[in-house]
Amino acid sequence: MKFLDKLQHASRKNNSLVCVGLDTDEGKIPPFLKSKDDPTFAFNQRIIDSTRDLVCAYKPNLAFYEVLGIRGWEALKKTCEYIPAEIPIILDAKRGDIGNTAQMYAKALYEVMKADAVTVSPYMGKDAVLPFLEYEDKGTFILCLTSNKGAADFQLSSVEGRPLYELVAEKVLSWNEKGNCGLVVGATYPEQLKRIRQIAPGLPFLIPGVGAQTGEIESTIKYGTDNKGELAIINSSRAILYASSGEDFAKAARNETLRLRDSINLYRRK
Amino acid sequence: MKFLDKLQHASRKNNSLVCVGLDTDEGKIPPFLKSKDDPTFAFNQRIIDSTRDLVCAYKPNLAFYEVLGIRGWEALKKTCEYIPAEIPIILDAKRGDIGNTAQMYAKALYEVMKADAVTVSPYMGKDAVLPFLEYEDKGTFILCLTSNKGAADFQLSSVEGRPLYELVAEKVLSWNEKGNCGLVVGATYPEQLKRIRQIAPGLPFLIPGVGAQTGEIESTIKYGTDNKGELAIINSSRAILYASSGEDFAKAARNETLRLRDSINLYRRK
Repeated sequence: MKFLDKLQHASRKNNSLVCVGLDTDEGKIPPFLKSKDDPTFAFNQRIIDSTRDLVCAYKPNLAFYEVLGIRGWEALKKTCEYIPAEIPIILDAKRGDIGNTAQMYAKALYEVMKADAVTVSPYMGKDAVLPFLEYEDKGTFILCLTSNKGAADFQLSSVEGRPLYELVAEKVLSWNEKGNCGLVVGATYPEQLKRIRQIAPGLPFLIPGVGAQTGEIESTIKYGTDNKGELAIINSSRAILYASSGEDFAKAARNETLRLRDSINLYRRK
Repeated sequence: MKFLDKLQHASRKNNSLVCVGLDTDEGKIPPFLKSKDDPTFAFNQRIIDSTRDLVCAYKPNLAFYEVLGIRGWEALKKTCEYIPAEIPIILDAKRGDIGNTAQMYAKALYEVMKADAVTVSPYMGKDAVLPFLEYEDKGTFILCLTSNKGAADFQLSSVEGRPLYELVAEKVLSWNEKGNCGLVVGATYPEQLKRIRQIAPGLPFLIPGVGAQTGEIESTIKYGTDNKGELAIINSSRAILYASSGEDFAKAARNETLRLRDSINLYRRK
């Protein structure tokens, strides 16, 4: 099944644009889980169990697993296997390298870790992204305008009359021959989000930056979704994962996911 | 010891600017090694043994290990531990993410994998790079102008009167408060390499693209080194690792490293 179909199916079934970012920081896991064999996986299992009927996707960020060394990769692999088969897994890796190396990254993420989609960096250009796009049924989200302050350093620079992020959006459109490209656009820049949606009305957007990063929901949904109120994946990590630090963390995560899903749905076009 | 001191020490001792890129592709390992418990590590050991007196650094690219899953991380960790303590390890990871995530990547690479230096992507700006720079004794090489064709897509774009890669070089200079920044500049663009050396006369350059990627040695050394004929790390991967596919591969790798070292030294300022 193609990534976009899988995404649409999960999103409609759960009536949700929410993606839970599994950026599991072992330092923030509730103390009672720390005696488990694999605290990160034990935490993720409970988060997945309590949110699986409320999300359109899960997005583990690889940094949080790499920092644990080999056992982190084990935790990530088990987590990916535990996520219900009908819910897409987006591995947030932000990789980017020359062709023969990008091929290895694509294989690592799509074949070894069995991701449905990944994030990649555009800085090295088309040939660094193409090996990912060869996987026709997978989704490749290219960084366009990120949610952090540093986005201003280069992404907002003016390139031949328009900001660099617009050039990235235009190029990605031209790379989208197999219909499997998407864009990463932060919720913290609503005006720019609107502009990027104009440039790429049919691409899925992965939108981080609501919750801990203060992006506003109303403008994010208004500008970030397509004309059917879809094609936006709204990611929240910390605000959900650490909604409580006690034994009730999974219930608190569910409540926070539900609250976010319903806030989002208020503003979606029908 | 600071990264630049360690680099200078190894480079002077071995009279070499050559960095061997440990981009070990299991599909290209000589058949007789494939029955070993860990063919990638067995291959790397022999490459290291046969080149350790000829190099200024080793640079494993993480993609080639990630593609093997958990056993790839084991092979990488063993390889890093096997590299002689006096030779710097540059982990080619090209990571880049928002602050709290970049902190995790920095910790993974510098503390868990014990790299002396890493490569990172500039696309997300200063706050995505700063967590790496907090490690004062480590070296952080920021992608500036890469050796691939796709570099033209964004890096050569004109930003307010100059190419994007020049803006990156300027910004990195301004981030270099702790003296631990470097730039990645491909050997395939000699004129641009000259210009970047003018902008950043005192930064170390990691220069891929000689060998399999056809960058010319004379112009690379002339323009890439500083005024003492140093501060350039010339990486070659495939041309050295796969100089022979037979049982003599380590000897062939040594001969190729020696040939490259001596070709480079012909053109260095004294």
